[in-house]
Order: sequence, then structure tokens, then C-alpha cells
Amino acid sequence: MNGMKQHAPIGVFDSGVGGLTVAKEIMRALPGETIVYYGDTARVPYGTKSPETVTAYSRQIAKFLMSQQVKAMVVACNTISALALETIEKEFDVPFIGVVKPGARTAAGATRNKKIGVIATEGTISSGMYESFLKSLNPEVKVYGKACPLFVALAEEGWLQDPITKQVAERYLVELKEKEIDTLVLGCTHYPLLRKVIGEVMGEKVTLVNPAYETAQELRYVLEDNHILNDSKEAAAHKFYVSDGAEKFRRIANMILPCEIEVEDVAIKSFE
Amino acid sequence: MNGMKQHAPIGVFDSGVGGLTVAKEIMRALPGETIVYYGDTARVPYGTKSPETVTAYSRQIAKFLMSQQVKAMVVACNTISALALETIEKEFDVPFIGVVKPGARTAAGATRNKKIGVIATEGTISSGMYESFLKSLNPEVKVYGKACPLFVALAEEGWLQDPITKQVAERYLVELKEKEIDTLVLGCTHYPLLRKVIGEVMGEKVTLVNPAYETAQELRYVLEDNHILNDSKEAAAHKFYVSDGAEKFRRIANMILPCEIEVEDVAIKSFE
Repeated sequence: MNGMKQHAPIGVFDSGVGGLTVAKEIMRALPGETIVYYGDTARVPYGTKSPETVTAYSRQIAKFLMSQQVKAMVVACNTISALALETIEKEFDVPFIGVVKPGARTAAGATRNKKIGVIATEGTISSGMYESFLKSLNPEVKVYGKACPLFVALAEEGWLQDPITKQVAERYLVELKEKEIDTLVLGCTHYPLLRKVIGEVMGEKVTLVNPAYETAQELRYVLEDNHILNDSKEAAAHKFYVSDGAEKFRRIANMILPCEIEVEDVAIKSFE
Repeated sequence: MNGMKQHAPIGVFDSGVGGLTVAKEIMRALPGETIVYYGDTARVPYGTKSPETVTAYSRQIAKFLMSQQVKAMVVACNTISALALETIEKEFDVPFIGVVKPGARTAAGATRNKKIGVIATEGTISSGMYESFLKSLNPEVKVYGKACPLFVALAEEGWLQDPITKQVAERYLVELKEKEIDTLVLGCTHYPLLRKVIGEVMGEKVTLVNPAYETAQELRYVLEDNHILNDSKEAAAHKFYVSDGAEKFRRIANMILPCEIEVEDVAIKSFE
């Protein structure tokens, strides 16, 4: 049975385009694995929604991906990982990998002075998920969270290296600098696009953690543990589904990913 | 029959909190009318969604409000008015009033040099709805549209009179200044919250048009025409429904509106 499962695809989902940065790391780390991606572009963003709504929407997406016979599920969105993962992973019969735990593990390993900053959406910060997981890894760490709601809008506007973006970053990050953190988790999949500006503001002594890389490694361990890693040299064709704006998604995806892709619109309500 | 209808409420709907600025003008202009408001806070924002998705979501909301026996419907959102109103108003048996046409009429009347700017969401600008309606009112006007996606995020962050907001406004508005417009339509219900900064950037010779006021007047004409205006001295209790985050909505609403309100969560999918 695992012999057949080996060739099944990996489900990857996000509220929109942000999770493509995670998909890219999976393609790089596990070139034999085929991805089926769902971006909920009709209902993006999730960062300001309640836990109940994020959970309901995520469940719908997971049902859709299960209908594509995936062997494992990567939740490529910090908000979903923080607010809904614990609930929905119990409802499905495949392993789920979120981005919060791998990101937290990297940060806990990287800090020297035990002061870690986390920047993310309102939903992720107020869930306290990063803090509680970091403290379970090392009760001595101090964790400082800060919601940066304008960062997503600035990244989507394409103002990546821009004096306005830098001033916004300076305002959001000043309190983390005052706490003298030495490690900063980029706890929203859009934020790595602003990495250069965030790095300039924080200074070069602060380590920036992008959970996407570590998530791809975690996926490898889980697949190996379950004896369902696909060690082919090449993946089958990746598939991308969105709930709105397939053409706009395709344009952005083709800038982020190393390969040209096709995108299909799938209304999610048929899976409610 | 119209005698009974007179006492029915007015349905008002928006993608979120922005339409409260329109609800406020209705309360002021028509103190005898009772409002039933729906804010689709779970799926906000609409400004980046496709016309098909905006139409589908708006239809669901209109069905919900019809179940509340409304006698007229105010679409208190520029994006819905531009992308979906023409389709959905044919599907229901009550008059619909959008914000685009009243706003356009005011702008067409206010301009002296026949150069009008429109700032709004991506969806509203690319629909070309303001331009085509302004040109139908006066074929001589020149219309310059500009999408300002960061304005909603800045307004929701509360950075209303802020040096960063001013720089963003200067960048977005420079091309409209170069065209020497004398009238600027604030074509998104969030933008009046940034009115002071926008006014400073454009200079005092440019007239800023807020369609909310004119929409309330248009509603009055429609109700009078149909002999269903409620001329009581006082409205019954207004009702507010949202698809997510009732408590957050209540806090914002109680800052914008002249009265304390209660808010209820209603999942919209039961009206699909």
C-alpha cells in the first residue's frame, strides 16, 4: 500500500499566493514530489479572521485536497498553522505539517541571548502559538510578538525595497529592537519578500528565520518516517488551484517558482 | 400595501465596516428609517476579487437581507456597486441604490475644468464604471482613475493623520495632480477616513467628493417615488449582522455611528 502511496502528491495550501514560497522550498528539497496547491484567493487574507472562520475555511480546502488523493498535507500559512491546524489535522487520515513548529524550532536553535521576536498577522500573534511552542522547546526564552498588518499590502504592492516600506518597518520593529532580540521569525509567508528592508532595520546581528526552508525539511522526515517518500529524480506536473483570479495568480507564481505553471479556478463551496 | 411597506427596514450592505459611513449618512438624512446592515467581514476585502466572485457573494448577502423583509437595498460599497449591482438588481423585487451613480453625479456637477479624478480599489478602477457613468452625464469630462490599495490598510491601521500615510498619498496622487483635476471622487468607503491627508496633498482648490452623502439623498428620492418613505420621527432599532468578528465590528461601529449598537454573527453560506 505504501508502494502506491509513494507516488501520490503532496497537498499544499494557503490563503493565497504567500504559500508559494513554501512550495518553492519543497520543490528544491524534494525534487521527486509532486505538489497539488490550493490558494484561497477569493477569501484572502486570513490574518484578520477569527479562529472559527479560519478553521471552517481550512477544513473546506483540506477536503478538496483529499479528493485529489494527497498522501500528506503542508499548511503553508502561518495563520492557519497557528489557528486551525491542531483541530483539522485530527479530522483527516494523512499527516499534516504546518509552518509554525519548524520555524519555532529553527529560532530556538539560532538564538544565543534567548530573546526571540516574532512578526506575523494579527491572528497568528494573538493566538500566542509561536510563544507557547518556543517556550515548550526552551522555557528560558523570552518571546516578543508584533503584528505588522501593512507588510502584506506593501509586499503585494511590490514596494519591496522602498523608503516608505522602510519607514513602516522602522515603526513596527522599534519595540523589538529595544528588547534586544537576536533572532526574528518572519512568521507570515509574505514577509520574506521584504527580507532586505527588515534586515536593514534590524541590523546584521539579528538572525532572520524563514520557516519555509525548515518546513520542507520537516516534510522529508515525515515522509521518510511513513515510508512514503518519492525518490524519483523528477516530479510529475504540479497542479495549482485557486478560488479566484487564476490569471493574476499565475503571473505571480511564475515569478516566484522555478517553473512555468498552469492554474485552474475551483469554487470551494462544493466541498463545504 | 405600500402602507405596510413604509415601515419595513432598509437593507444596507458592504464587504465590511466601510459601509458604516453610508449608514451614518442615511441615519442623519432619514431619521425615520430603520437599517438592517450586513458586513461580509469574513470575506473582506472585495476590491481585489473578480467580478464573478463579487457578484456571487453580493447575491448571497442580498438574499439574506431579503429574508429580513427590506423594502429597499443600499449597496454601500463602491466595488459591489461597480462590479455586481447591474446584475443583481434585476434578480430582486425591491429598488437597489448603489454609491457609484450618486457619487458620479455630484462630481459631474462640481467640476469646473471638466477634469475629474477617481481613487478607488483595483476592482472599481478596472471596471471603468465611474468613467463610463461620468461620460454619460457629460461627454466632455476627462476622467483619471487611480487604484490606491494601501489606503484601506492604512485606514484600518488607524494611521489617519500620519507622515507615512501622507507619503503614500503623495506617491499615489502625483499623477492626478499632474493632470490638474479640480474634483476628486473618494471612490471607496474607507477613503473618507483619510480625507484630511488626501486634502492636504491635493490642495484646497480640489473638491473632494464623498459619495455617502449623495447616496442618502438618492435613497430619499427613490423611497418618495415609490411612496414608501417612513416619515416617523424616530427609527426602530437598527440591526447589524456580520460574517465574522462581531465584537471587533461593534467597536469600530460605535466609533463611526452616533448610537451604540449590537452586532450578530450570521454565516452567509446558508443563503447560497
